[in-house]
Amino acid sequence: MQVISKKKGRQSVVFTEPPMVFSSASIVGDVEAKGPLGSRFDLILDDDTWGEKSWEKAESKMFERSVRLAAEKSKIDLNEIDCLLGGDLLNQIISASYAARTLKIPYFGLYGACSTMTESLLISGMLIDGGFREMAACTASSHFSTAERQYRFPLELGNQIPPTSQRTVTGAGCVIIGNANKCKDGFLFKSIRITAGTIGRIVDLGITDASNMGAAMAPAAADTISAHLQDMNRTVDDYDLIVTGDLGKFGSEMLFDLCKEKNVDISGKHADCGCLIYTADQDVNCGGSGCGCSAVTLASYYLERIENANYDRILFLATGALMSPSSSLQGESIPGIAHAVVMERSCCI
Amino acid sequence: MQVISKKKGRQSVVFTEPPMVFSSASIVGDVEAKGPLGSRFDLILDDDTWGEKSWEKAESKMFERSVRLAAEKSKIDLNEIDCLLGGDLLNQIISASYAARTLKIPYFGLYGACSTMTESLLISGMLIDGGFREMAACTASSHFSTAERQYRFPLELGNQIPPTSQRTVTGAGCVIIGNANKCKDGFLFKSIRITAGTIGRIVDLGITDASNMGAAMAPAAADTISAHLQDMNRTVDDYDLIVTGDLGKFGSEMLFDLCKEKNVDISGKHADCGCLIYTADQDVNCGGSGCGCSAVTLASYYLERIENANYDRILFLATGALMSPSSSLQGESIPGIAHAVVMERSCCI
Repeated sequence: MQVISKKKGRQSVVFTEPPMVFSSASIVGDVEAKGPLGSRFDLILDDDTWGEKSWEKAESKMFERSVRLAAEKSKIDLNEIDCLLGGDLLNQIISASYAARTLKIPYFGLYGACSTMTESLLISGMLIDGGFREMAACTASSHFSTAERQYRFPLELGNQIPPTSQRTVTGAGCVIIGNANKCKDGFLFKSIRITAGTIGRIVDLGITDASNMGAAMAPAAADTISAHLQDMNRTVDDYDLIVTGDLGKFGSEMLFDLCKEKNVDISGKHADCGCLIYTADQDVNCGGSGCGCSAVTLASYYLERIENANYDRILFLATGALMSPSSSLQGESIPGIAHAVVMERSCCI
Repeated sequence: MQVISKKKGRQSVVFTEPPMVFSSASIVGDVEAKGPLGSRFDLILDDDTWGEKSWEKAESKMFERSVRLAAEKSKIDLNEIDCLLGGDLLNQIISASYAARTLKIPYFGLYGACSTMTESLLISGMLIDGGFREMAACTASSHFSTAERQYRFPLELGNQIPPTSQRTVTGAGCVIIGNANKCKDGFLFKSIRITAGTIGRIVDLGITDASNMGAAMAPAAADTISAHLQDMNRTVDDYDLIVTGDLGKFGSEMLFDLCKEKNVDISGKHADCGCLIYTADQDVNCGGSGCGCSAVTLASYYLERIENANYDRILFLATGALMSPSSSLQGESIPGIAHAVVMERSCCI
């Protein structure tokens, strides 16, 4: 038997039996709940330790509960989910691993920093369209308090932050996708398919300022958008919207310029989860960041917008900055990456 | 078109057009070179900074060079490799990410601790058999000096280590696999296929001693071996050898007992990369560990043994302990995971 090629160009893939989105769930902190999407999130934590002894344990609980909640919302039994793919920003992705321990689902840990949500969706999509798995939970989480003390300073110090910085979203988002044959009445979504995707390459323009993630990630987003359009032989007009993960205000502006240099004008078609999740008066400088940012925005907002026919086809790219505090101290610049998935509305089965 | 199911049981997959192993390379430090496999490694570092300013930069260079060397050994152009999947033990897997920046290959970062090599082989295998990619580089690295200072104490302290501990292997291993159609004369290997695999679940029996990784990982290895045999409807007799990643001496003994509890006797068919890589007089207590341990042992030794018909079919499981120093300090036990791949000799094309 010949393997049917689903490779498209250098970096992209197209699905022949596009996996469907079945369910989603989002859990966020109180700051995120005060933002424009506040009413759309499934669960809001008043206390960001969620009754646990540490923020790290709370983040892992968020990761785990987002999977359980996404399953519950579509009456999916956890045993039907035959793969869990995800990660977070913590050293050794402990939020994901400890959650996977409790969930007991076959598990692949991923590290793509803030790009984790689309890394997970893209790999899961391939495993499902390839016939290897039937249903996968794609999950990512981040937590303001765990990220601050790991990447920057103890919160107790009350350090000032520069104007280019972004606030790490306290949030976990889960999206359950699967083979269309598994679609059932009562599922939360019945009209969204992942039809294609583009695997990101690392792009690094030499940004060394770890408080300017947007600038570090924008070149990778521009590279992936450009590669996607070329591989797929499409233009920006083929999309209702191009959504980036968490470039924030500064990074989004940089993205427009970098795309224009490649003769791609996305300015009228672009949205960024990092710009969307907080209001201007929330004192978050350039917007939101963290694995959870694009995960909860997709899970709570964009999927519903596609299902309700506000959009027919979007290109969704979570973007990641892949440095560590050690690499920054050792004078390394910040490598960025962005993986893209195409989400389309198509008639339900 | 109907998706052909390649799912087997709860956790396993079988390939219909099994991906082939094309090439491999291994780079190790001087301690590893003094072990039983010394003469088989491709490149040996006399100085574990390899001329770089930090051990971390040296580890990333090892990761990168192992990919280049594996490609060179089979005269594969880097542009033919359409996906790089891998990771390491460092926070934010910076060895892998910085290597991917230089290599410019579409990249998925993975975190599976010492299980990374089989996580990479298993996902890559699915992407290739699914038709999404044609050739993938699967890579993992670890480094004694980076791991010591990140997980334990500054090396300069000269801390004593307990007898259950293992030595983190300084090494990077890369295995290039691809669609059989891509196989060419002159490739290093022409007779090895990855025919099936089993996705691991997290197993945690409550071990909290971070100096006893073997005990933390053995339950996961037993779980995956048992799941694999059940899913595939096979017995230990169907394999010439069952190779675990880096359980070490203590962990291997524990594995025999745990398997016996499941009525599986592997004692006559088992080997462990952590036990194989150093000699008894090298003062490494229970053996080798780290992502690089199973990666370099597979890349330098087991692949050749299959190619040369010493083995016809092996089950290869890298095993990972997914804790971080933070989770240990917060009183968490150590979750283990093991992903398995089946490697078989089959006639060349």
